[in-house]
Amino acid sequence: MDARRPYDIESLTDVAFAVFAARGYDAASMDDVARTAGITKAAIYHHVAGKEALLERGLARALDALFAILDDPAAADAPPDARLRAIVERVAATTIRLLPEVSVLFRVRGNSAVERRAMDRRRAFDAAVGRLVRAAQDAGRLRGDLDAGLIVRLAFGMSNSVVEWYRPGGREGAGAIAAAVVAILFDGLGAGVPTPRVDPDGAAR
Amino acid sequence: MDARRPYDIESLTDVAFAVFAARGYDAASMDDVARTAGITKAAIYHHVAGKEALLERGLARALDALFAILDDPAAADAPPDARLRAIVERVAATTIRLLPEVSVLFRVRGNSAVERRAMDRRRAFDAAVGRLVRAAQDAGRLRGDLDAGLIVRLAFGMSNSVVEWYRPGGREGAGAIAAAVVAILFDGLGAGVPTPRVDPDGAAR
Repeated sequence: MDARRPYDIESLTDVAFAVFAARGYDAASMDDVARTAGITKAAIYHHVAGKEALLERGLARALDALFAILDDPAAADAPPDARLRAIVERVAATTIRLLPEVSVLFRVRGNSAVERRAMDRRRAFDAAVGRLVRAAQDAGRLRGDLDAGLIVRLAFGMSNSVVEWYRPGGREGAGAIAAAVVAILFDGLGAGVPTPRVDPDGAAR
Repeated sequence: MDARRPYDIESLTDVAFAVFAARGYDAASMDDVARTAGITKAAIYHHVAGKEALLERGLARALDALFAILDDPAAADAPPDARLRAIVERVAATTIRLLPEVSVLFRVRGNSAVERRAMDRRRAFDAAVGRLVRAAQDAGRLRGDLDAGLIVRLAFGMSNSVVEWYRPGGREGAGAIAAAVVAILFDGLGAGVPTPRVDPDGAAR
Protein backbone atom coordinates (compact mmCIF):
# COMPACT_ATOMS: atom_id res chain seq x y z
CA MET A 1 0.00 0.00 0.00
CA ASP A 2 1.39 3.37 -1.05
CA ALA A 3 1.27 5.44 2.15
CA ARG A 4 0.74 8.67 0.24
CA ARG A 5 -2.40 7.39 -1.43
CA PRO A 6 -5.50 8.03 0.70
CA TYR A 7 -7.43 4.99 1.87
CA ASP A 8 -10.92 4.21 0.69
CA ILE A 9 -13.32 1.75 2.25
CA GLU A 10 -12.07 -1.14 0.08
CA SER A 11 -8.38 -0.68 0.87
CA LEU A 12 -9.22 -0.18 4.58
CA THR A 13 -11.09 -3.49 4.48
CA ASP A 14 -7.94 -5.08 2.98
CA VAL A 15 -5.85 -3.81 5.89
CA ALA A 16 -8.45 -4.75 8.50
CA PHE A 17 -8.67 -8.34 7.22
CA ALA A 18 -4.90 -8.72 7.15
CA VAL A 19 -5.02 -7.78 10.86
CA PHE A 20 -8.11 -9.90 11.65
CA ALA A 21 -6.61 -12.97 9.93
CA ALA A 22 -3.27 -12.61 11.74
CA ARG A 23 -4.52 -11.83 15.27
CA GLY A 24 -8.04 -13.22 15.23
CA TYR A 25 -11.06 -10.94 14.89
CA ASP A 26 -11.91 -10.84 18.61
CA ALA A 27 -8.34 -10.13 19.67
CA ALA A 28 -7.76 -7.47 16.98
CA SER A 29 -8.57 -3.86 17.90
CA MET A 30 -9.24 -0.78 15.79
CA ASP A 31 -5.94 0.51 17.23
CA ASP A 32 -4.22 -2.46 15.55
CA VAL A 33 -5.96 -1.67 12.26
CA ALA A 34 -5.04 2.03 12.49
CA ARG A 35 -1.40 1.21 13.33
CA THR A 36 -1.13 -1.24 10.44
CA ALA A 37 -2.74 1.26 8.07
CA GLY A 38 -0.47 4.02 9.35
CA ILE A 39 -3.37 6.41 9.93
CA THR A 40 -5.40 7.54 12.95
CA LYS A 41 -8.50 5.80 14.24
CA ALA A 42 -10.43 9.01 13.52
CA ALA A 43 -9.43 8.73 9.86
CA ILE A 44 -10.79 5.16 9.78
CA TYR A 45 -14.08 6.21 11.38
CA HIS A 46 -14.41 8.77 8.59
CA HIS A 47 -14.90 5.77 6.24
CA VAL A 48 -16.63 3.14 8.35
CA ALA A 49 -18.81 2.90 11.47
CA GLY A 50 -16.52 0.47 13.28
CA LYS A 51 -14.84 -2.91 13.51
CA GLU A 52 -18.03 -4.90 12.94
CA ALA A 53 -18.84 -2.93 9.77
CA LEU A 54 -15.38 -3.86 8.44
CA LEU A 55 -16.04 -7.49 9.38
CA GLU A 56 -19.38 -7.49 7.56
CA ARG A 57 -17.84 -5.99 4.42
CA GLY A 58 -14.98 -8.50 4.23
CA LEU A 59 -17.19 -11.52 5.00
CA ALA A 60 -19.53 -10.37 2.21
CA ARG A 61 -16.59 -10.37 -0.21
CA ALA A 62 -15.88 -14.01 0.60
CA LEU A 63 -19.51 -15.12 0.52
CA ASP A 64 -20.41 -13.17 -2.63
CA ALA A 65 -17.41 -14.77 -4.38
CA LEU A 66 -18.51 -18.26 -3.29
CA PHE A 67 -22.12 -17.78 -4.43
CA ALA A 68 -20.91 -16.31 -7.74
CA ILE A 69 -19.25 -19.69 -8.38
CA LEU A 70 -22.61 -21.45 -8.05
CA ASP A 71 -24.35 -18.96 -10.33
CA ASP A 72 -21.93 -19.28 -13.24
CA PRO A 73 -24.37 -19.65 -16.18
CA ALA A 74 -21.70 -21.29 -18.37
CA ALA A 75 -21.73 -24.32 -16.05
CA ALA A 76 -25.50 -24.77 -15.82
CA ASP A 77 -25.71 -27.23 -18.72
CA ALA A 78 -22.75 -29.43 -17.73
CA PRO A 79 -23.31 -32.84 -16.07
CA PRO A 80 -23.44 -32.56 -12.27
CA ASP A 81 -20.05 -34.19 -11.69
CA ALA A 82 -18.37 -31.83 -14.17
CA ARG A 83 -20.09 -28.88 -12.46
CA LEU A 84 -18.85 -30.14 -9.09
CA ARG A 85 -15.27 -30.43 -10.28
CA ALA A 86 -15.41 -26.88 -11.60
CA ILE A 87 -17.01 -25.62 -8.39
CA VAL A 88 -14.47 -27.30 -6.10
CA GLU A 89 -11.59 -25.98 -8.20
CA ARG A 90 -12.99 -22.43 -8.14
CA VAL A 91 -13.74 -22.61 -4.39
CA ALA A 92 -10.13 -23.64 -3.72
CA ALA A 93 -8.80 -20.87 -5.99
CA THR A 94 -11.14 -18.32 -4.36
CA THR A 95 -9.99 -19.42 -0.90
CA ILE A 96 -6.42 -18.61 -1.90
CA ARG A 97 -7.30 -15.38 -3.74
CA LEU A 98 -9.34 -14.05 -0.78
CA LEU A 99 -7.22 -15.74 1.88
CA PRO A 100 -7.75 -13.23 4.75
CA GLU A 101 -11.49 -12.88 4.12
CA VAL A 102 -12.05 -16.64 3.82
CA SER A 103 -9.82 -17.39 6.82
CA VAL A 104 -11.88 -15.07 8.99
CA LEU A 105 -15.13 -16.48 7.56
CA PHE A 106 -14.09 -20.01 8.58
CA ARG A 107 -13.36 -18.86 12.13
CA VAL A 108 -16.48 -16.87 13.00
CA ARG A 109 -18.38 -18.57 15.79
CA GLY A 110 -21.70 -16.70 15.78
CA ASN A 111 -20.82 -14.11 18.43
CA SER A 112 -22.91 -11.35 16.76
CA ALA A 113 -25.73 -10.92 14.26
CA VAL A 114 -23.15 -10.20 11.54
CA GLU A 115 -21.34 -13.47 12.30
CA ARG A 116 -24.57 -15.44 12.46
CA ARG A 117 -25.74 -14.11 9.08
CA ALA A 118 -22.39 -15.06 7.57
CA MET A 119 -22.64 -18.57 9.06
CA ASP A 120 -26.18 -18.90 7.66
CA ARG A 121 -24.97 -17.95 4.18
CA ARG A 122 -22.05 -20.36 4.43
CA ARG A 123 -24.39 -23.17 5.44
CA ALA A 124 -26.67 -22.31 2.51
CA PHE A 125 -23.67 -22.55 0.20
CA ASP A 126 -22.68 -25.96 1.58
CA ALA A 127 -26.28 -27.15 1.27
CA ALA A 128 -26.44 -26.07 -2.39
CA VAL A 129 -23.24 -28.00 -3.13
CA GLY A 130 -24.65 -30.96 -1.20
CA ARG A 131 -27.71 -31.00 -3.50
CA LEU A 132 -25.39 -31.09 -6.49
CA VAL A 133 -23.43 -34.01 -4.96
CA ARG A 134 -26.69 -35.91 -4.47
CA ALA A 135 -27.75 -35.15 -8.06
CA ALA A 136 -24.41 -36.48 -9.32
CA GLN A 137 -24.82 -39.60 -7.18
CA ASP A 138 -28.40 -40.13 -8.38
CA ALA A 139 -27.18 -39.80 -11.97
CA GLY A 140 -24.58 -42.52 -11.29
CA ARG A 141 -21.71 -40.12 -11.91
CA LEU A 142 -20.26 -40.11 -8.36
CA ARG A 143 -19.86 -43.02 -5.96
CA GLY A 144 -23.11 -43.54 -4.07
CA ASP A 145 -21.80 -45.24 -0.92
CA LEU A 146 -20.97 -42.04 1.00
CA ASP A 147 -23.41 -39.52 2.46
CA ALA A 148 -23.57 -36.33 0.35
CA GLY A 149 -23.35 -34.07 3.39
CA LEU A 150 -20.27 -35.93 4.64
CA ILE A 151 -18.68 -35.61 1.19
CA VAL A 152 -19.25 -31.83 1.22
CA ARG A 153 -17.77 -31.47 4.72
CA LEU A 154 -14.67 -33.52 3.85
CA ALA A 155 -14.22 -31.91 0.41
CA PHE A 156 -14.35 -28.39 1.81
CA GLY A 157 -12.32 -29.55 4.80
CA MET A 158 -9.51 -30.34 2.38
CA SER A 159 -9.98 -27.18 0.32
CA ASN A 160 -10.41 -24.90 3.35
CA SER A 161 -7.23 -26.23 4.96
CA VAL A 162 -5.17 -24.06 2.61
CA VAL A 163 -5.89 -21.10 4.90
CA GLU A 164 -3.75 -22.87 7.52
CA TRP A 165 -0.63 -23.31 5.44
CA TYR A 166 -0.76 -21.41 2.13
CA ARG A 167 1.85 -18.67 1.81
CA PRO A 168 1.99 -16.44 -1.28
CA GLY A 169 5.11 -17.15 -3.33
CA GLY A 170 5.39 -20.71 -2.02
CA ARG A 171 6.47 -23.69 -4.07
CA GLU A 172 3.02 -24.45 -5.47
CA GLY A 173 0.94 -21.72 -7.07
CA ALA A 174 -2.76 -21.22 -6.43
CA GLY A 175 -3.76 -22.91 -9.68
CA ALA A 176 -1.67 -26.01 -8.98
CA ILE A 177 -3.10 -26.33 -5.48
CA ALA A 178 -6.70 -25.97 -6.70
CA ALA A 179 -6.02 -28.59 -9.39
CA ALA A 180 -4.49 -30.94 -6.80
CA VAL A 181 -7.58 -30.64 -4.58
CA VAL A 182 -9.79 -31.65 -7.51
CA ALA A 183 -7.43 -34.45 -8.60
CA ILE A 184 -7.33 -36.01 -5.13
CA LEU A 185 -11.03 -35.59 -4.38
CA PHE A 186 -12.41 -36.97 -7.61
CA ASP A 187 -9.72 -39.39 -8.80
CA GLY A 188 -7.87 -40.29 -5.59
CA LEU A 189 -4.20 -40.81 -4.78
CA GLY A 190 -4.32 -44.25 -6.40
CA ALA A 191 -5.42 -42.89 -9.79
CA GLY A 192 -3.56 -44.47 -12.69
CA VAL A 193 -1.73 -46.92 -10.44
CA PRO A 194 -2.20 -50.52 -11.62
CA THR A 195 -4.03 -52.72 -9.14
CA PRO A 196 -1.50 -55.23 -7.76
CA ARG A 197 -2.03 -58.72 -9.10
CA VAL A 198 -2.77 -61.34 -6.48
CA ASP A 199 -1.11 -64.75 -6.72
CA PRO A 200 -3.10 -67.88 -5.97
CA ASP A 201 -1.48 -68.00 -2.53
CA GLY A 202 -2.98 -64.57 -1.79
CA ALA A 203 0.24 -62.54 -1.76
CA ALA A 204 0.18 -59.32 -3.74
CA ARG A 205 3.20 -58.76 -5.94
CA MET B 1 -17.99 -36.92 35.65
CA ASP B 2 -19.34 -38.02 39.05
CA ALA B 3 -19.05 -34.90 41.21
CA ARG B 4 -18.46 -36.96 44.33
CA ARG B 5 -15.42 -38.69 42.88
CA PRO B 6 -12.23 -36.73 43.51
CA TYR B 7 -10.37 -35.48 40.46
CA ASP B 8 -6.96 -36.73 39.48
CA ILE B 9 -4.58 -35.12 37.02
CA GLU B 10 -6.01 -37.10 34.08
CA SER B 11 -9.64 -36.19 34.71
CA LEU B 12 -8.65 -32.56 35.36
CA THR B 13 -6.90 -32.55 31.98
CA ASP B 14 -10.14 -33.84 30.45
CA VAL B 15 -12.09 -30.95 31.93
CA ALA B 16 -9.43 -28.38 31.04
CA PHE B 17 -9.36 -29.48 27.39
CA ALA B 18 -13.16 -29.40 27.12
CA VAL B 19 -12.88 -25.76 28.25
CA PHE B 20 -9.84 -24.96 26.05
CA ALA B 21 -11.49 -26.48 22.97
CA ALA B 22 -14.74 -24.59 23.53
CA ARG B 23 -13.36 -21.15 24.45
CA GLY B 24 -9.88 -21.22 22.94
CA TYR B 25 -6.79 -21.77 25.10
CA ASP B 26 -5.81 -18.09 25.33
CA ALA B 27 -9.34 -16.96 26.24
CA ALA B 28 -9.90 -19.75 28.79
CA SER B 29 -8.96 -19.06 32.41
CA MET B 30 -8.27 -21.34 35.33
CA ASP B 31 -11.47 -19.88 36.82
CA ASP B 32 -13.33 -21.33 33.82
CA VAL B 33 -11.69 -24.71 34.40
CA ALA B 34 -12.48 -24.65 38.12
CA ARG B 35 -16.12 -23.63 37.47
CA THR B 36 -16.57 -26.40 34.89
CA ALA B 37 -14.97 -28.95 37.21
CA GLY B 38 -17.11 -27.74 40.11
CA ILE B 39 -14.10 -27.37 42.42
CA THR B 40 -11.93 -24.49 43.63
CA LYS B 41 -8.85 -23.22 41.85
CA ALA B 42 -6.85 -24.17 44.97
CA ALA B 43 -7.99 -27.77 44.52
CA ILE B 44 -6.74 -27.71 40.92
CA TYR B 45 -3.37 -26.29 41.95
CA HIS B 46 -3.06 -29.22 44.32
CA HIS B 47 -2.72 -31.41 41.19
CA VAL B 48 -1.03 -29.22 38.62
CA ALA B 49 1.25 -26.16 38.46
CA GLY B 50 -1.05 -24.15 36.20
CA LYS B 51 -2.81 -23.70 32.90
CA GLU B 52 0.28 -24.27 30.78
CA ALA B 53 1.06 -27.55 32.55
CA LEU B 54 -2.47 -28.71 31.68
CA LEU B 55 -1.91 -27.61 28.08
CA GLU B 56 1.36 -29.53 27.87
CA ARG B 57 -0.23 -32.68 29.26
CA GLY B 58 -3.19 -32.65 26.84
CA LEU B 59 -1.04 -31.82 23.80
CA ALA B 60 1.24 -34.73 24.71
CA ARG B 61 -1.79 -37.04 24.70
CA ALA B 62 -2.60 -36.02 21.13
CA LEU B 63 0.99 -36.16 19.89
CA ASP B 64 1.83 -39.44 21.65
CA ALA B 65 -1.27 -41.01 20.07
CA LEU B 66 -0.25 -39.79 16.61
CA PHE B 67 3.32 -41.06 16.90
CA ALA B 68 2.07 -44.41 18.24
CA ILE B 69 0.27 -44.82 14.90
CA LEU B 70 3.58 -44.51 13.03
CA ASP B 71 5.30 -46.96 15.35
CA ASP B 72 2.80 -49.78 14.95
CA PRO B 73 5.12 -52.78 14.36
CA ALA B 74 2.33 -54.81 12.72
CA ALA B 75 2.31 -52.34 9.80
CA ALA B 76 6.08 -52.19 9.24
CA ASP B 77 6.10 -54.98 6.64
CA ALA B 78 3.11 -53.79 4.60
CA PRO B 79 3.62 -51.98 1.27
CA PRO B 80 3.90 -48.18 1.73
CA ASP B 81 0.46 -47.42 0.23
CA ALA B 82 -1.21 -49.94 2.54
CA ARG B 83 0.65 -48.44 5.51
CA LEU B 84 -0.51 -44.99 4.45
CA ARG B 85 -4.14 -46.06 4.22
CA ALA B 86 -3.93 -47.55 7.70
CA ILE B 87 -2.17 -44.46 9.07
CA VAL B 88 -4.67 -42.00 7.58
CA GLU B 89 -7.58 -44.06 8.89
CA ARG B 90 -6.06 -44.22 12.39
CA VAL B 91 -5.19 -40.51 12.37
CA ALA B 92 -8.80 -39.66 11.50
CA ALA B 93 -10.12 -42.03 14.19
CA THR B 94 -7.65 -40.60 16.75
CA THR B 95 -8.71 -37.06 15.87
CA ILE B 96 -12.29 -37.98 16.73
CA ARG B 97 -11.37 -40.01 19.83
CA LEU B 98 -9.18 -37.20 21.25
CA LEU B 99 -11.27 -34.37 19.77
CA PRO B 100 -10.55 -31.67 22.41
CA GLU B 101 -6.82 -32.44 22.58
CA VAL B 102 -6.39 -32.56 18.80
CA SER B 103 -8.55 -29.44 18.28
CA VAL B 104 -6.33 -27.47 20.64
CA LEU B 105 -3.18 -28.93 19.03
CA PHE B 106 -4.32 -27.70 15.59
CA ARG B 107 -4.88 -24.21 16.95
CA VAL B 108 -1.68 -23.54 18.87
CA ARG B 109 0.28 -20.73 17.26
CA GLY B 110 3.64 -20.95 19.01
CA ASN B 111 2.94 -18.40 21.76
CA SER B 112 5.06 -20.27 24.34
CA ALA B 113 7.80 -22.88 24.56
CA VAL B 114 5.17 -25.55 25.22
CA GLU B 115 3.27 -24.56 22.06
CA ARG B 116 6.44 -24.40 19.98
CA ARG B 117 7.53 -27.87 21.10
CA ALA B 118 4.10 -29.23 20.20
CA MET B 119 4.29 -27.58 16.76
CA ASP B 120 7.75 -29.08 16.23
CA ARG B 121 6.47 -32.55 17.05
CA ARG B 122 3.47 -32.08 14.77
CA ARG B 123 5.75 -31.00 11.92
CA ALA B 124 7.97 -34.05 12.55
CA PHE B 125 4.87 -36.25 12.31
CA ASP B 126 3.82 -34.67 9.00
CA ALA B 127 7.37 -35.04 7.67
CA ALA B 128 7.44 -38.75 8.57
CA VAL B 129 4.14 -39.29 6.73
CA GLY B 130 5.53 -37.27 3.81
CA ARG B 131 8.51 -39.64 3.55
CA LEU B 132 6.08 -42.55 3.40
CA VAL B 133 4.09 -40.82 0.63
CA ARG B 134 7.29 -40.35 -1.35
CA ALA B 135 8.25 -44.00 -0.81
CA ALA B 136 4.83 -45.08 -2.09
CA GLN B 137 5.21 -42.81 -5.12
CA ASP B 138 8.72 -44.10 -5.82
CA ALA B 139 7.39 -47.66 -5.62
CA GLY B 140 4.73 -46.75 -8.21
CA ARG B 141 1.92 -47.40 -5.75
CA LEU B 142 0.59 -43.81 -5.50
CA ARG B 143 0.19 -41.24 -8.29
CA GLY B 144 3.47 -39.45 -8.83
CA ASP B 145 2.21 -36.19 -10.33
CA LEU B 146 1.55 -34.41 -7.02
CA ASP B 147 4.13 -33.16 -4.50
CA ALA B 148 4.33 -35.42 -1.43
CA GLY B 149 4.28 -32.48 0.98
CA LEU B 150 1.18 -31.06 -0.72
CA ILE B 151 -0.51 -34.46 -0.50
CA VAL B 152 0.19 -34.63 3.25
CA ARG B 153 -1.16 -31.11 3.84
CA LEU B 154 -4.34 -31.78 1.84
CA ALA B 155 -4.86 -35.26 3.29
CA PHE B 156 -4.57 -34.06 6.88
CA GLY B 157 -6.54 -30.94 5.93
CA MET B 158 -9.45 -33.22 5.12
CA SER B 159 -8.93 -35.45 8.16
CA ASN B 160 -8.33 -32.55 10.57
CA SER B 161 -11.50 -30.78 9.44
CA VAL B 162 -13.56 -33.16 11.55
CA VAL B 163 -12.67 -31.05 14.60
CA GLU B 164 -14.76 -28.27 13.04
CA TRP B 165 -17.98 -30.23 12.61
CA TYR B 166 -17.91 -33.64 14.35
CA ARG B 167 -20.42 -34.01 17.13
CA PRO B 168 -20.59 -37.20 19.22
CA GLY B 169 -23.79 -39.09 18.52
CA GLY B 170 -24.16 -37.60 15.05
CA ARG B 171 -25.42 -39.47 12.00
CA GLU B 172 -22.04 -40.93 11.06
CA GLY B 173 -19.93 -42.75 13.65
CA ALA B 174 -16.18 -42.23 14.03
CA GLY B 175 -15.36 -45.44 12.16
CA ALA B 176 -17.53 -44.52 9.17
CA ILE B 177 -15.98 -41.05 8.97
CA ALA B 178 -12.43 -42.41 9.14
CA ALA B 179 -13.28 -44.94 6.43
CA ALA B 180 -14.80 -42.19 4.26
CA VAL B 181 -11.64 -40.09 4.55
CA VAL B 182 -9.56 -43.04 3.32
CA ALA B 183 -12.04 -43.92 0.56
CA ILE B 184 -12.07 -40.37 -0.83
CA LEU B 185 -8.34 -39.75 -0.50
CA PHE B 186 -7.12 -42.96 -2.08
CA ASP B 187 -9.93 -43.95 -4.45
CA GLY B 188 -11.69 -40.63 -5.14
CA LEU B 189 -15.34 -39.68 -5.48
CA GLY B 190 -15.41 -41.12 -8.99
CA ALA B 191 -14.38 -44.62 -7.84
CA GLY B 192 -16.37 -47.39 -9.50
CA VAL B 193 -18.21 -44.96 -11.76
CA PRO B 194 -17.87 -45.99 -15.41
CA THR B 195 -16.01 -43.44 -17.52
CA PRO B 196 -18.57 -41.87 -19.88
CA ARG B 197 -18.12 -42.99 -23.45
CA VAL B 198 -17.43 -40.23 -25.89
CA ASP B 199 -19.20 -40.25 -29.26
CA PRO B 200 -17.27 -39.36 -32.40
CA ASP B 201 -18.80 -35.87 -32.29
CA GLY B 202 -17.20 -35.36 -28.87
CA ALA B 203 -20.35 -35.40 -26.73
CA ALA B 204 -20.23 -37.57 -23.64
CA ARG B 205 -23.27 -39.76 -23.07
